[in-house]
Amino acid sequence: MARWRRTLYETIFEAETRAGKTFDVLLLVAIVLSVLVVILESVNSLDARFAVQFDAVEWAFTLLFTIEYALRIVSVDRPLRYIFSFFGIVDLLSILPMYLAAIFGHGHEVMVIRSLRLLRMFRLFGMGRMLSEGSALARAVLASRDKIVVFLSVVLIAVVIVGAAIYAIEGEDSGFTSIPEAMYWAVVTMTTVGYGDIAPETWFGKFLASVMMVLGYSLIVVPTGIVTTEVVRAHGVSTRTCSGCLKVGHDADALHCKFCGGKLSEPGTG
Amino acid sequence: MARWRRTLYETIFEAETRAGKTFDVLLLVAIVLSVLVVILESVNSLDARFAVQFDAVEWAFTLLFTIEYALRIVSVDRPLRYIFSFFGIVDLLSILPMYLAAIFGHGHEVMVIRSLRLLRMFRLFGMGRMLSEGSALARAVLASRDKIVVFLSVVLIAVVIVGAAIYAIEGEDSGFTSIPEAMYWAVVTMTTVGYGDIAPETWFGKFLASVMMVLGYSLIVVPTGIVTTEVVRAHGVSTRTCSGCLKVGHDADALHCKFCGGKLSEPGTG
Amino acid sequence: MARWRRTLYETIFEAETRAGKTFDVLLLVAIVLSVLVVILESVNSLDARFAVQFDAVEWAFTLLFTIEYALRIVSVDRPLRYIFSFFGIVDLLSILPMYLAAIFGHGHEVMVIRSLRLLRMFRLFGMGRMLSEGSALARAVLASRDKIVVFLSVVLIAVVIVGAAIYAIEGEDSGFTSIPEAMYWAVVTMTTVGYGDIAPETWFGKFLASVMMVLGYSLIVVPTGIVTTEVVRAHGVSTRTCSGCLKVGHDADALHCKFCGGKLSEPGTG
Amino acid sequence: MARWRRTLYETIFEAETRAGKTFDVLLLVAIVLSVLVVILESVNSLDARFAVQFDAVEWAFTLLFTIEYALRIVSVDRPLRYIFSFFGIVDLLSILPMYLAAIFGHGHEVMVIRSLRLLRMFRLFGMGRMLSEGSALARAVLASRDKIVVFLSVVLIAVVIVGAAIYAIEGEDSGFTSIPEAMYWAVVTMTTVGYGDIAPETWFGKFLASVMMVLGYSLIVVPTGIVTTEVVRAHGVSTRTCSGCLKVGHDADALHCKFCGGKLSEPGTG
Repeated sequence: MARWRRTLYETIFEAETRAGKTFDVLLLVAIVLSVLVVILESVNSLDARFAVQFDAVEWAFTLLFTIEYALRIVSVDRPLRYIFSFFGIVDLLSILPMYLAAIFGHGHEVMVIRSLRLLRMFRLFGMGRMLSEGSALARAVLASRDKIVVFLSVVLIAVVIVGAAIYAIEGEDSGFTSIPEAMYWAVVTMTTVGYGDIAPETWFGKFLASVMMVLGYSLIVVPTGIVTTEVVRAHGVSTRTCSGCLKVGHDADALHCKFCGGKLSEPGTG
Repeated sequence: MARWRRTLYETIFEAETRAGKTFDVLLLVAIVLSVLVVILESVNSLDARFAVQFDAVEWAFTLLFTIEYALRIVSVDRPLRYIFSFFGIVDLLSILPMYLAAIFGHGHEVMVIRSLRLLRMFRLFGMGRMLSEGSALARAVLASRDKIVVFLSVVLIAVVIVGAAIYAIEGEDSGFTSIPEAMYWAVVTMTTVGYGDIAPETWFGKFLASVMMVLGYSLIVVPTGIVTTEVVRAHGVSTRTCSGCLKVGHDADALHCKFCGGKLSEPGTG
Repeated sequence: MARWRRTLYETIFEAETRAGKTFDVLLLVAIVLSVLVVILESVNSLDARFAVQFDAVEWAFTLLFTIEYALRIVSVDRPLRYIFSFFGIVDLLSILPMYLAAIFGHGHEVMVIRSLRLLRMFRLFGMGRMLSEGSALARAVLASRDKIVVFLSVVLIAVVIVGAAIYAIEGEDSGFTSIPEAMYWAVVTMTTVGYGDIAPETWFGKFLASVMMVLGYSLIVVPTGIVTTEVVRAHGVSTRTCSGCLKVGHDADALHCKFCGGKLSEPGTG
Repeated sequence: MARWRRTLYETIFEAETRAGKTFDVLLLVAIVLSVLVVILESVNSLDARFAVQFDAVEWAFTLLFTIEYALRIVSVDRPLRYIFSFFGIVDLLSILPMYLAAIFGHGHEVMVIRSLRLLRMFRLFGMGRMLSEGSALARAVLASRDKIVVFLSVVLIAVVIVGAAIYAIEGEDSGFTSIPEAMYWAVVTMTTVGYGDIAPETWFGKFLASVMMVLGYSLIVVPTGIVTTEVVRAHGVSTRTCSGCLKVGHDADALHCKFCGGKLSEPGTG
């Protein structure tokens, strides 16, 4: 690999060298500013006064990110793998809408997807620790995958049945104009958001809604239990590896490997 | 048992054979579509344009499910046990309302109960694992039965007393037209749904509501604790005892005692 | 103690004998009916038609409960202790308002306090198990007493400061007419009830409210953690008693008393 | 150190002596009263009648707290350290706004910051126990610092993206007049507050909002899991190791090893 490509790679993709750190800090600032511009541009009173400036700044950032995107493709060993990776697609979606908006006229709000690029910024500030926290949470959620699918299926079926029931009871006079509308109300109620834009008005509708709230509340706490369990489990486990069978996942108070029975190293205090 | 009945049984009730899997996938699609039709039919703008088509599709699915229901009764060994099982009743309720609606004119919304049949679909996609997750959750809830009855009784008594108090304080001017109405408000508030269709307007009513929210919040978190405990218990630790050192507290996936390294009995499925 | 007093005591206060069980069931029905009458009486349309009947039934139940109250005082060994016990006061408050309302004209809604008497009904239906669940929950809450006082103090201080801040920012135009009003809004928001009867309307008010919601949410989950911990702890502990020092509270996996070191009986599987 | 300074210090800063306790009780009453005055003064009907009295009382408390502040500075050994400590700044902010309001005319509501001084009051009533509870909670939160930063970053990014999406879908007709407005709605919805002052009105907006509620709910329960874990960890198990069998996992109140019965080292206060 050519020397300059190696340096470019280290600067853009890593944060170990001084140049890499400087690049990341500047990029962080650029992303935050560019997202801020998109947000502020949507405020009518501001857009009326600064339309030209907003446009100029947006184009500047878009060109900057386009150059950065090109440099990323040039400097990696396997460009296709980068292009179709999660961050590669995010990087592309961060610049494409501006060009499309220039051609078709609308839709540059999509560019707030740029904020996803901030996820890459965790590696700054010695955030290896945070990344591992983040991935511990992510793993906890992944480990609950099956439970969450079952849970969401049950919620969906409950929403359909409760929605149809309240639609049949309340009718169109109370704002429940269709089953989809009533299902929207059921979701708003079961998650305890409760906008109040639609609410039951008949005796029986209110009674059913009350029962649903108390039971629905019990239903909706289930994920709390699931996530808590996984987080507890993720933390109740030490990082020791059995020297016999090389398996991990031993409890903090384990003395022997629970898989092969071999002696483990001293339990730490953590 | 006749050969064709055995084949029919395997196709309809099981998902091991190729025919059984195909049947389940087709049934899954049919159920989802038929529920979707009932939901869409309730939307006025759609019903105005496609009333005839919706009606035709609904009758088609109802006939299909009626045939399926008949085949299920024919193919099982003990038809009565199937008919009065949970899924047997759900299957009947999925077709009956259409016939009743044809006679009496109204009420075919009840057919969204068809969505309950989707619960049977977990066995598809190798979802034995999910079924066991589902039943683990169900068992966790069952194990908390007593606590939940106590909890619901306490909530009900709290709702009656708080409802009567706010009715006495606020009176009819603020929308608390009767104690049942005030009890509905108490449920809406204690579950933190908070529609805002009724809200206290006097100083003392607002003060009482504030106290109730903070205390009621504490009350309503109790099920979280209960469910979490049961989920933790269900997943954390098996009840096996090490025959070497007589210690308990081993993980469900442990093969060896984590204290003395002795071999444990086979881990159960629970 | 005279024979008839003993029999009376067993009938009224206990549920071991056939007479005692019958008495409890009848009392349960009477309490539920009498509370129901008070609730229904508050509904205008019903009260307009059945005012006389409601009045008659209320007086009948009140006389019944008055006789019961007198019999309770007569049959216990230490009447004063009963009168000033929790249930003694509840029993008195269940009848007194009716007489006071007859004299002063208003306020018989207080009688819904009768519903508290239902708590005594847990002993029916072999609910010793439930009582122990109830008292396990109560003990879990009691054990968190200090934490809850600290938590409520912090919440109160937060409500005062946030309330004053939003009052200063929003002013009277947005409905925040005074600091107490703003504090009510802060409680409604921090508990995630969110009626929407008052809501911030300025930019800065909305920003502050957003920050408060996210942080306030984190604050309000603290009790969840506390209660869960106590419930977990209450269940992680077996009921074995050390034969040496007679202390309880040993973990399910303990082999020796953690207080005096004496050997414990075999750990059970529960 | 001069005798009188030592006595002054013990009286003002500590609560061991009789004088110190009396001082603390009086200060507690003074703080509560002065905060109450600021709160009541904001109520128009009260301020119209008692403006002069409120003003007099406020000045009296402010002078009192000014003298107290001066005495605190005089009596501590290192005045600067006190002045720039958390409580030193709170003490200053408790009196300064009154003087500034006298000069500039407005803003004495800032004085509710006085309520923060109540935190110091925990030491009264033998609340060392409560302080340790408070700091246990604080430590639990601190220990989750990294996780909370990751969590808040993810929430912020989700709010930006969801806000922009709903702004693009709903447009200004439904009240989503700008992206910041839509982000405010996203926070109100994801925390399940749900005022209902803005709500989606189109089909697609309602669908997206429903998905966001269910997923956002799952997102927002994560802190519950985190805090619970930390509280459990903080309270459950000490880090002491048995010198006899080298096992860990003893309760915080254990005196003897629960595995071998050997004596443990003194339990710490943590």
